[in-house]
Amino acid sequence: MGLSASRASGVGNNLKHCTLWKADRSPACRAVMMALDALDLNINEVDVNMDKGEHRSPEMIVMNPLQTLPILKDRNLILNDSNAIATYMATRYWSPHASKLLPSDPGARAMIDQFMFFNSNVLYPRYKEAAHPILYKNCRYVPPNTMCDIQCAYADLEKMLQGRMFIGGSSPSMGDIMLIATVSTLNILVPIDQIEFPRVSSWVHRMSEEMFYTTANKKGLCEFARRLGELTGVQSTKD
Amino acid sequence: MGLSASRASGVGNNLKHCTLWKADRSPACRAVMMALDALDLNINEVDVNMDKGEHRSPEMIVMNPLQTLPILKDRNLILNDSNAIATYMATRYWSPHASKLLPSDPGARAMIDQFMFFNSNVLYPRYKEAAHPILYKNCRYVPPNTMCDIQCAYADLEKMLQGRMFIGGSSPSMGDIMLIATVSTLNILVPIDQIEFPRVSSWVHRMSEEMFYTTANKKGLCEFARRLGELTGVQSTKD
Repeated sequence: MGLSASRASGVGNNLKHCTLWKADRSPACRAVMMALDALDLNINEVDVNMDKGEHRSPEMIVMNPLQTLPILKDRNLILNDSNAIATYMATRYWSPHASKLLPSDPGARAMIDQFMFFNSNVLYPRYKEAAHPILYKNCRYVPPNTMCDIQCAYADLEKMLQGRMFIGGSSPSMGDIMLIATVSTLNILVPIDQIEFPRVSSWVHRMSEEMFYTTANKKGLCEFARRLGELTGVQSTKD
Repeated sequence: MGLSASRASGVGNNLKHCTLWKADRSPACRAVMMALDALDLNINEVDVNMDKGEHRSPEMIVMNPLQTLPILKDRNLILNDSNAIATYMATRYWSPHASKLLPSDPGARAMIDQFMFFNSNVLYPRYKEAAHPILYKNCRYVPPNTMCDIQCAYADLEKMLQGRMFIGGSSPSMGDIMLIATVSTLNILVPIDQIEFPRVSSWVHRMSEEMFYTTANKKGLCEFARRLGELTGVQSTKD
Protein backbone atom coordinates (compact mmCIF):
# COMPACT_ATOMS: atom_id res chain seq x y z
CA MET A 1 0.00 0.00 0.00
CA GLY A 2 1.18 3.53 -0.58
CA LEU A 3 -0.05 7.07 -0.31
CA SER A 4 -0.59 8.43 -3.79
CA ALA A 5 -0.06 11.96 -5.03
CA SER A 6 -3.16 14.05 -5.45
CA ARG A 7 -4.53 13.94 -8.97
CA ALA A 8 -6.15 17.36 -8.80
CA SER A 9 -4.52 20.69 -9.42
CA GLY A 10 -4.31 21.51 -5.75
CA VAL A 11 -6.56 24.55 -6.10
CA GLY A 12 -9.58 22.64 -4.75
CA ASN A 13 -10.85 22.16 -1.23
CA ASN A 14 -8.25 20.27 0.84
CA LEU A 15 -9.78 17.74 3.24
CA LYS A 16 -6.75 16.17 4.85
CA HIS A 17 -8.86 14.51 7.57
CA CYS A 18 -10.43 12.28 4.88
CA THR A 19 -8.73 9.19 3.42
CA LEU A 20 -9.74 6.99 0.50
CA TRP A 21 -8.34 3.47 0.14
CA LYS A 22 -8.61 2.48 -3.51
CA ALA A 23 -7.33 0.48 -6.47
CA ASP A 24 -7.34 2.32 -9.80
CA ARG A 25 -8.36 -0.84 -11.67
CA SER A 26 -11.70 -1.05 -9.82
CA PRO A 27 -14.63 0.81 -11.46
CA ALA A 28 -16.16 1.50 -8.02
CA CYS A 29 -12.93 3.21 -6.93
CA ARG A 30 -12.66 5.19 -10.16
CA ALA A 31 -16.27 6.32 -9.69
CA VAL A 32 -15.36 7.86 -6.32
CA MET A 33 -12.13 9.35 -7.69
CA MET A 34 -14.05 11.01 -10.54
CA ALA A 35 -16.66 12.29 -8.07
CA LEU A 36 -13.93 13.83 -5.90
CA ASP A 37 -12.32 15.53 -8.91
CA ALA A 38 -15.70 16.78 -10.18
CA LEU A 39 -16.40 18.17 -6.69
CA ASP A 40 -12.88 19.68 -6.64
CA LEU A 41 -12.08 17.98 -3.32
CA ASN A 42 -8.55 16.85 -2.42
CA ILE A 43 -8.27 14.05 0.15
CA ASN A 44 -5.59 11.52 1.14
CA GLU A 45 -5.55 8.51 -1.15
CA VAL A 46 -3.98 5.13 -0.40
CA ASP A 47 -3.33 2.64 -3.20
CA VAL A 48 -4.24 -0.93 -2.25
CA ASN A 49 -2.83 -3.86 -4.23
CA MET A 50 -5.73 -6.30 -4.63
CA ASP A 51 -3.55 -8.89 -6.43
CA LYS A 52 -1.45 -9.09 -3.23
CA GLY A 53 -4.66 -9.34 -1.14
CA GLU A 54 -3.90 -6.10 0.74
CA HIS A 55 -7.66 -5.39 0.94
CA ARG A 56 -7.98 -8.51 3.12
CA SER A 57 -5.41 -7.43 5.73
CA PRO A 58 -6.63 -7.31 9.38
CA GLU A 59 -6.52 -3.50 9.54
CA MET A 60 -8.62 -3.26 6.34
CA ILE A 61 -11.15 -5.85 7.58
CA VAL A 62 -11.68 -3.80 10.75
CA MET A 63 -12.74 -0.91 8.52
CA ASN A 64 -14.68 -3.01 6.01
CA PRO A 65 -15.62 -6.60 6.89
CA LEU A 66 -16.91 -7.06 3.34
CA GLN A 67 -13.28 -6.86 2.09
CA THR A 68 -14.12 -4.61 -0.83
CA LEU A 69 -12.79 -1.29 -2.11
CA PRO A 70 -13.20 1.67 -2.01
CA ILE A 71 -13.21 2.63 1.68
CA LEU A 72 -13.62 6.23 2.84
CA LYS A 73 -12.77 7.40 6.35
CA ASP A 74 -13.90 10.86 7.42
CA ARG A 75 -13.01 11.12 11.13
CA ASN A 76 -15.27 8.49 12.80
CA LEU A 77 -17.36 7.73 9.73
CA ILE A 78 -16.30 4.79 7.57
CA LEU A 79 -18.13 4.04 4.31
CA ASN A 80 -17.51 1.24 1.78
CA ASP A 81 -20.10 1.80 -0.96
CA SER A 82 -18.98 4.00 -3.87
CA ASN A 83 -22.43 5.53 -4.40
CA ALA A 84 -22.89 6.30 -0.69
CA ILE A 85 -19.38 7.80 -0.57
CA ALA A 86 -19.95 10.03 -3.61
CA THR A 87 -23.33 11.37 -2.45
CA TYR A 88 -21.99 11.81 1.11
CA MET A 89 -19.06 13.92 -0.09
CA ALA A 90 -21.38 16.04 -2.26
CA THR A 91 -23.82 16.74 0.59
CA ARG A 92 -21.30 16.99 3.46
CA TYR A 93 -18.90 19.28 1.56
CA TRP A 94 -21.44 21.34 -0.32
CA SER A 95 -20.25 23.69 -3.09
CA PRO A 96 -21.65 25.16 -6.31
CA HIS A 97 -20.10 22.12 -8.07
CA ALA A 98 -21.97 19.79 -5.73
CA SER A 99 -25.37 21.37 -6.26
CA LYS A 100 -24.95 20.93 -10.03
CA LEU A 101 -23.85 17.30 -9.69
CA LEU A 102 -26.45 16.34 -7.09
CA PRO A 103 -29.44 18.74 -7.06
CA SER A 104 -31.45 19.04 -3.85
CA ASP A 105 -34.81 19.20 -5.70
CA PRO A 106 -36.46 15.85 -4.81
CA GLY A 107 -37.60 15.03 -8.37
CA ALA A 108 -34.26 15.84 -10.02
CA ARG A 109 -32.40 13.96 -7.30
CA ALA A 110 -34.74 10.94 -7.64
CA MET A 111 -33.93 10.62 -11.34
CA ILE A 112 -30.20 10.61 -10.57
CA ASP A 113 -30.74 8.09 -7.75
CA GLN A 114 -32.68 5.87 -10.14
CA PHE A 115 -29.75 5.67 -12.56
CA MET A 116 -27.36 5.06 -9.66
CA PHE A 117 -29.49 2.13 -8.47
CA PHE A 118 -29.63 0.81 -12.05
CA ASN A 119 -25.84 0.89 -12.02
CA SER A 120 -25.75 -0.86 -8.64
CA ASN A 121 -28.46 -3.40 -9.42
CA VAL A 122 -27.80 -4.23 -13.09
CA LEU A 123 -24.54 -2.89 -14.53
CA TYR A 124 -22.13 -3.52 -11.66
CA PRO A 125 -23.20 -7.12 -10.94
CA ARG A 126 -22.72 -7.88 -14.66
CA TYR A 127 -19.27 -6.29 -14.59
CA LYS A 128 -18.38 -8.53 -11.63
CA GLU A 129 -19.85 -11.58 -13.34
CA ALA A 130 -17.69 -10.94 -16.43
CA ALA A 131 -14.46 -9.62 -14.90
CA HIS A 132 -13.95 -11.43 -11.60
CA PRO A 133 -13.62 -14.97 -13.07
CA ILE A 134 -10.90 -13.59 -15.38
CA LEU A 135 -9.13 -11.49 -12.73
CA TYR A 136 -9.30 -14.02 -9.89
CA LYS A 137 -10.31 -17.50 -11.15
CA ASN A 138 -8.14 -18.27 -14.19
CA CYS A 139 -11.03 -17.89 -16.65
CA ARG A 140 -9.78 -16.62 -20.03
CA TYR A 141 -12.95 -15.22 -21.60
CA VAL A 142 -16.39 -13.75 -20.91
CA PRO A 143 -18.92 -16.62 -21.18
CA PRO A 144 -21.59 -16.19 -23.91
CA ASN A 145 -24.52 -15.94 -21.44
CA THR A 146 -22.71 -13.18 -19.50
CA MET A 147 -21.99 -11.35 -22.78
CA CYS A 148 -25.69 -11.63 -23.58
CA ASP A 149 -26.64 -10.22 -20.13
CA ILE A 150 -24.30 -7.26 -20.73
CA GLN A 151 -25.83 -6.61 -24.18
CA CYS A 152 -29.27 -6.62 -22.48
CA ALA A 153 -27.99 -4.07 -19.94
CA TYR A 154 -26.75 -1.86 -22.82
CA ALA A 155 -30.20 -2.18 -24.42
CA ASP A 156 -31.88 -1.09 -21.16
CA LEU A 157 -29.49 1.85 -20.83
CA GLU A 158 -30.18 2.80 -24.46
CA LYS A 159 -33.90 3.09 -23.60
CA MET A 160 -33.21 5.00 -20.37
CA LEU A 161 -31.05 7.57 -22.18
CA GLN A 162 -33.81 8.46 -24.66
CA GLY A 163 -34.08 12.25 -24.87
CA ARG A 164 -31.16 12.82 -22.51
CA MET A 165 -27.75 14.41 -23.19
CA PHE A 166 -26.80 13.40 -19.67
CA ILE A 167 -28.89 11.78 -16.93
CA GLY A 168 -29.74 15.00 -15.16
CA GLY A 169 -29.97 17.35 -18.16
CA SER A 170 -27.36 19.25 -20.15
CA SER A 171 -24.36 18.60 -17.90
CA PRO A 172 -23.02 15.48 -16.13
CA SER A 173 -24.53 14.57 -12.77
CA MET A 174 -23.26 12.30 -10.00
CA GLY A 175 -25.33 9.57 -11.64
CA ASP A 176 -23.45 9.96 -14.94
CA ILE A 177 -20.16 9.69 -13.06
CA MET A 178 -21.15 6.50 -11.23
CA LEU A 179 -22.39 4.91 -14.47
CA ILE A 180 -19.49 5.85 -16.72
CA ALA A 181 -17.00 4.15 -14.38
CA THR A 182 -18.84 0.86 -14.90
CA VAL A 183 -19.88 1.31 -18.54
CA SER A 184 -16.39 2.35 -19.72
CA THR A 185 -15.08 -0.85 -18.09
CA LEU A 186 -17.84 -3.04 -19.54
CA ASN A 187 -16.96 -1.51 -22.93
CA ILE A 188 -13.57 -3.24 -22.67
CA LEU A 189 -15.13 -6.60 -21.77
CA VAL A 190 -18.00 -6.42 -24.32
CA PRO A 191 -17.55 -3.54 -26.81
CA ILE A 192 -20.59 -1.27 -27.25
CA ASP A 193 -21.93 -1.45 -30.81
CA GLN A 194 -22.34 2.13 -32.10
CA ILE A 195 -25.06 1.12 -34.56
CA GLU A 196 -27.09 -0.92 -32.08
CA PHE A 197 -26.64 1.44 -29.12
CA PRO A 198 -26.15 4.95 -30.57
CA ARG A 199 -27.30 6.83 -27.44
CA VAL A 200 -25.04 4.83 -25.12
CA SER A 201 -22.10 5.28 -27.53
CA SER A 202 -22.62 9.05 -27.78
CA TRP A 203 -23.05 9.39 -24.02
CA VAL A 204 -19.82 7.43 -23.40
CA HIS A 205 -18.03 9.72 -25.87
CA ARG A 206 -19.42 12.87 -24.21
CA MET A 207 -18.41 11.62 -20.76
CA SER A 208 -14.91 10.71 -21.99
CA GLU A 209 -14.35 14.39 -22.85
CA GLU A 210 -14.94 15.57 -19.28
CA MET A 211 -11.89 16.65 -17.29
CA PHE A 212 -12.67 14.31 -14.34
CA TYR A 213 -12.71 11.35 -16.77
CA THR A 214 -9.19 12.25 -17.92
CA THR A 215 -7.82 12.86 -14.43
CA ALA A 216 -9.49 9.97 -12.59
CA ASN A 217 -10.76 7.25 -14.96
CA LYS A 218 -8.35 6.95 -17.88
CA LYS A 219 -5.29 5.60 -16.07
CA GLY A 220 -7.17 2.89 -14.14
CA LEU A 221 -9.15 1.91 -17.20
CA CYS A 222 -5.91 1.43 -19.17
CA GLU A 223 -4.55 -0.63 -16.27
CA PHE A 224 -7.69 -2.79 -16.29
CA ALA A 225 -7.44 -3.29 -20.08
CA ARG A 226 -3.75 -4.19 -19.84
CA ARG A 227 -4.31 -6.72 -17.04
CA LEU A 228 -7.25 -8.23 -18.91
CA GLY A 229 -5.08 -8.53 -22.01
CA GLU A 230 -2.33 -10.27 -20.03
CA LEU A 231 -4.84 -12.78 -18.60
CA THR A 232 -6.86 -13.48 -21.76
CA GLY A 233 -4.22 -12.99 -24.44
CA VAL A 234 -6.53 -10.48 -26.18
CA GLN A 235 -5.40 -6.85 -26.29
CA SER A 236 -8.12 -4.19 -26.20
CA THR A 237 -7.89 -1.05 -28.31
CA LYS A 238 -10.32 0.81 -26.00
CA ASP A 239 -9.30 3.25 -23.31
CA MET B 1 -55.25 -4.62 -13.34
CA GLY B 2 -57.38 -3.07 -10.66
CA LEU B 3 -57.35 -0.16 -8.24
CA SER B 4 -56.82 -1.52 -4.76
CA ALA B 5 -58.25 -0.24 -1.50
CA SER B 6 -55.92 1.82 0.64
CA ARG B 7 -54.12 -0.24 3.27
CA ALA B 8 -53.65 2.62 5.68
CA SER B 9 -56.14 3.90 8.21
CA GLY B 10 -57.04 6.92 6.13
CA VAL B 11 -55.79 9.36 8.73
CA GLY B 12 -52.52 9.94 6.82
CA ASN B 13 -51.64 12.44 4.14
CA ASN B 14 -53.77 11.82 1.03
CA LEU B 15 -51.86 12.28 -2.23
CA LYS B 16 -54.46 11.44 -4.84
CA HIS B 17 -52.29 12.84 -7.66
CA CYS B 18 -49.79 10.00 -7.08
CA THR B 19 -50.26 6.45 -8.38
CA LEU B 20 -48.26 3.30 -7.68
CA TRP B 21 -48.47 0.30 -10.03
CA LYS B 22 -47.44 -2.78 -8.05
CA ALA B 23 -47.68 -6.52 -7.49
CA ASP B 24 -47.81 -7.60 -3.84
CA ARG B 25 -45.66 -10.64 -4.57
CA SER B 26 -42.66 -8.50 -5.60
CA PRO B 27 -40.25 -7.50 -2.78
CA ALA B 28 -39.45 -4.22 -4.57
CA CYS B 29 -43.17 -3.33 -4.58
CA ARG B 30 -43.61 -4.33 -0.94
CA ALA B 31 -40.60 -2.15 -0.05
CA VAL B 32 -42.37 0.90 -1.51
CA MET B 33 -45.71 -0.06 0.09
CA MET B 34 -44.03 -0.33 3.52
CA ALA B 35 -42.27 3.01 2.95
CA LEU B 36 -45.59 4.69 2.12
CA ASP B 37 -47.25 3.24 5.24
CA ALA B 38 -44.28 4.21 7.42
CA LEU B 39 -44.48 7.74 5.97
CA ASP B 40 -48.27 7.71 6.54
CA LEU B 41 -48.92 8.62 2.90
CA ASN B 42 -52.03 7.41 1.04
CA ILE B 43 -51.76 7.26 -2.76
CA ASN B 44 -53.65 5.46 -5.53
CA GLU B 45 -52.47 1.89 -5.99
CA VAL B 46 -53.03 -0.29 -9.04
CA ASP B 47 -52.54 -4.07 -8.84
CA VAL B 48 -50.69 -5.48 -11.86
CA ASN B 49 -50.87 -9.21 -12.63
CA MET B 50 -47.36 -10.20 -13.67
CA ASP B 51 -48.39 -13.81 -14.44
CA LYS B 52 -50.71 -12.39 -17.12
CA GLY B 53 -47.90 -10.13 -18.40
CA GLU B 54 -49.83 -6.94 -17.59
CA HIS B 55 -46.53 -5.19 -16.78
CA ARG B 56 -45.55 -5.65 -20.44
CA SER B 57 -48.65 -3.92 -21.89
CA PRO B 58 -48.00 -0.97 -24.26
CA GLU B 59 -49.27 1.62 -21.75
CA MET B 60 -46.96 0.23 -19.05
CA ILE B 61 -43.94 0.15 -21.40
CA VAL B 62 -44.46 3.84 -22.18
CA MET B 63 -44.06 4.53 -18.47
CA ASN B 64 -41.26 2.02 -17.89
CA PRO B 65 -39.40 0.55 -20.86
CA LEU B 66 -37.58 -1.81 -18.48
CA GLN B 67 -40.91 -3.64 -17.91
CA THR B 68 -40.43 -3.90 -14.15
CA LEU B 69 -42.54 -3.02 -11.13
CA PRO B 70 -43.07 -0.87 -9.11
CA ILE B 71 -43.81 2.30 -11.08
CA LEU B 72 -44.66 5.60 -9.39
CA LYS B 73 -46.29 8.52 -11.20
CA ASP B 74 -46.40 11.89 -9.45
CA ARG B 75 -47.80 14.34 -12.00
CA ASN B 76 -45.07 14.45 -14.72
CA LEU B 77 -42.47 12.48 -12.81
CA ILE B 78 -42.30 8.72 -13.42
CA LEU B 79 -39.93 6.53 -11.39
CA ASN B 80 -39.34 2.78 -11.58
CA ASP B 81 -36.74 2.04 -8.92
CA SER B 82 -38.07 1.14 -5.46
CA ASN B 83 -35.22 2.85 -3.59
CA ALA B 84 -35.50 6.05 -5.65
CA ILE B 85 -39.29 6.05 -5.15
CA ALA B 86 -39.04 5.60 -1.37
CA THR B 87 -36.41 8.31 -0.85
CA TYR B 88 -38.26 10.63 -3.26
CA MET B 89 -41.52 10.31 -1.32
CA ALA B 90 -39.70 10.92 1.99
CA THR B 91 -37.97 14.08 0.74
CA ARG B 92 -40.79 15.45 -1.46
CA TYR B 93 -43.51 14.93 1.17
CA TRP B 94 -41.52 15.77 4.23
CA SER B 95 -42.99 15.03 7.69
CA PRO B 96 -41.70 14.21 11.18
CA HIS B 97 -42.02 10.53 10.17
CA ALA B 98 -39.85 11.18 7.12
CA SER B 99 -37.04 12.88 9.02
CA LYS B 100 -36.83 9.88 11.36
CA LEU B 101 -36.81 7.38 8.48
CA LEU B 102 -34.40 9.34 6.29
CA PRO B 103 -32.30 11.83 8.28
CA SER B 104 -30.91 14.86 6.47
CA ASP B 105 -27.55 14.72 8.31
CA PRO B 106 -25.06 13.63 5.59
CA GLY B 107 -23.30 10.99 7.71
CA ALA B 108 -26.48 9.37 9.02
CA ARG B 109 -28.02 9.43 5.54
CA ALA B 110 -24.85 7.92 4.00
CA MET B 111 -25.04 4.91 6.33
CA ILE B 112 -28.66 4.30 5.30
CA ASP B 113 -27.74 4.76 1.62
CA GLN B 114 -24.92 2.23 2.03
CA PHE B 115 -27.33 -0.44 3.26
CA MET B 116 -29.76 0.41 0.45
CA PHE B 117 -27.01 -0.05 -2.13
CA PHE B 118 -26.02 -3.35 -0.46
CA ASN B 119 -29.64 -4.41 -0.91
CA SER B 120 -29.61 -3.27 -4.53
CA ASN B 121 -26.18 -4.66 -5.38
CA VAL B 122 -26.08 -7.93 -3.42
CA LEU B 123 -29.38 -9.04 -1.88
CA TYR B 124 -31.84 -8.20 -4.67
CA PRO B 125 -29.80 -9.76 -7.52
CA ARG B 126 -29.57 -12.97 -5.45
CA TYR B 127 -33.33 -12.92 -4.83
CA LYS B 128 -33.85 -12.63 -8.61
CA GLU B 129 -31.32 -15.38 -9.30
CA ALA B 130 -33.16 -17.73 -6.94
CA ALA B 131 -36.80 -16.79 -7.52
CA HIS B 132 -37.16 -15.86 -11.20
CA PRO B 133 -36.21 -19.31 -12.61
CA ILE B 134 -38.91 -20.82 -10.36
CA LEU B 135 -41.55 -18.14 -11.03
CA TYR B 136 -40.96 -17.81 -14.78
CA LYS B 137 -38.78 -20.66 -16.13
CA ASN B 138 -40.23 -23.94 -14.78
CA CYS B 139 -37.32 -24.49 -12.41
CA ARG B 140 -38.44 -26.36 -9.26
CA TYR B 141 -35.68 -25.56 -6.77
CA VAL B 142 -32.97 -23.07 -5.84
CA PRO B 143 -29.67 -24.36 -7.30
CA PRO B 144 -26.93 -25.14 -4.71
CA ASN B 145 -24.57 -22.39 -5.94
CA THR B 146 -27.35 -19.79 -5.66
CA MET B 147 -28.18 -21.06 -2.14
CA CYS B 148 -24.51 -20.67 -1.29
CA ASP B 149 -24.47 -17.08 -2.65
CA ILE B 150 -27.51 -16.26 -0.49
CA GLN B 151 -25.83 -17.73 2.61
CA CYS B 152 -22.79 -15.52 1.84
CA ALA B 153 -25.08 -12.48 1.61
CA TYR B 154 -26.57 -13.39 5.03
CA ALA B 155 -23.01 -13.66 6.39
CA ASP B 156 -22.18 -10.18 5.03
CA LEU B 157 -25.38 -8.73 6.51
CA GLU B 158 -24.55 -10.41 9.85
CA LYS B 159 -21.23 -8.50 9.89
CA MET B 160 -22.87 -5.23 8.81
CA LEU B 161 -25.47 -5.43 11.61
CA GLN B 162 -22.83 -5.71 14.34
CA GLY B 163 -23.70 -3.27 17.13
CA ARG B 164 -26.93 -2.17 15.46
CA MET B 165 -30.54 -2.63 16.61
CA PHE B 166 -31.58 -1.15 13.27
CA ILE B 167 -29.45 0.29 10.47
CA GLY B 168 -29.86 3.88 11.54
CA GLY B 169 -29.98 3.44 15.32
CA SER B 170 -32.75 2.55 17.72
CA SER B 171 -35.69 2.74 15.29
CA PRO B 172 -36.23 1.50 11.72
CA SER B 173 -34.93 3.67 8.87
CA MET B 174 -35.80 3.70 5.19
CA GLY B 175 -32.81 1.39 4.72
CA ASP B 176 -34.28 -1.19 7.13
CA ILE B 177 -37.54 -1.08 5.18
CA MET B 178 -35.87 -1.62 1.79
CA LEU B 179 -33.80 -4.50 3.16
CA ILE B 180 -36.54 -6.31 5.06
CA ALA B 181 -38.66 -6.60 1.91
CA THR B 182 -35.86 -8.55 0.24
CA VAL B 183 -34.56 -10.46 3.29
CA SER B 184 -38.03 -11.64 4.40
CA THR B 185 -38.49 -13.03 0.87
CA LEU B 186 -35.03 -14.62 0.74
CA ASN B 187 -35.90 -16.23 4.11
CA ILE B 188 -38.61 -18.21 2.31
CA LEU B 189 -36.23 -19.32 -0.45
CA VAL B 190 -33.26 -20.10 1.85
CA PRO B 191 -34.24 -20.04 5.55
CA ILE B 192 -32.00 -17.94 7.82
CA ASP B 193 -30.24 -20.10 10.41
CA GLN B 194 -30.77 -18.50 13.85
CA ILE B 195 -27.57 -20.02 15.26
CA GLU B 196 -25.37 -19.03 12.34
CA PHE B 197 -26.90 -15.58 11.79
CA PRO B 198 -28.23 -14.41 15.18
CA ARG B 199 -28.12 -10.68 14.38
CA VAL B 200 -29.93 -11.09 11.06
CA SER B 201 -32.54 -13.35 12.72
CA SER B 202 -33.16 -10.88 15.55
CA TRP B 203 -33.34 -7.94 13.16
CA VAL B 204 -35.86 -9.79 10.96
CA HIS B 205 -37.93 -10.51 14.07
CA ARG B 206 -37.80 -6.88 15.23
CA MET B 207 -38.80 -5.64 11.78
CA SER B 208 -41.68 -8.16 11.58
CA GLU B 209 -43.21 -6.50 14.66
CA GLU B 210 -43.46 -3.08 12.99
CA MET B 211 -46.93 -1.93 11.95
CA PHE B 212 -45.86 -1.19 8.32
CA TYR B 213 -44.62 -4.80 8.03
CA THR B 214 -48.05 -6.08 9.03
CA THR B 215 -49.98 -3.68 6.79
CA ALA B 216 -47.76 -3.81 3.69
CA ASN B 217 -45.43 -6.84 3.67
CA LYS B 218 -47.24 -9.78 5.25
CA LYS B 219 -49.95 -10.36 2.66
CA GLY B 220 -47.60 -10.26 -0.37
CA LEU B 221 -45.03 -12.40 1.40
CA CYS B 222 -47.69 -15.07 2.05
CA GLU B 223 -48.72 -14.82 -1.60
CA PHE B 224 -45.10 -15.31 -2.68
CA ALA B 225 -44.71 -18.33 -0.34
CA ARG B 226 -47.95 -19.89 -1.59
CA ARG B 227 -46.99 -19.43 -5.27
CA LEU B 228 -43.52 -20.82 -4.61
CA GLY B 229 -45.10 -23.83 -2.87
CA GLU B 230 -47.41 -24.44 -5.86
CA LEU B 231 -44.46 -24.35 -8.26
CA THR B 232 -41.93 -26.36 -6.24
CA GLY B 233 -44.24 -28.69 -4.32
CA VAL B 234 -42.61 -27.53 -1.06
CA GLN B 235 -44.76 -25.55 1.37
CA SER B 236 -43.02 -22.92 3.48
CA THR B 237 -43.95 -22.34 7.11
CA LYS B 238 -42.48 -18.81 7.05
CA ASP B 239 -44.51 -15.64 6.69
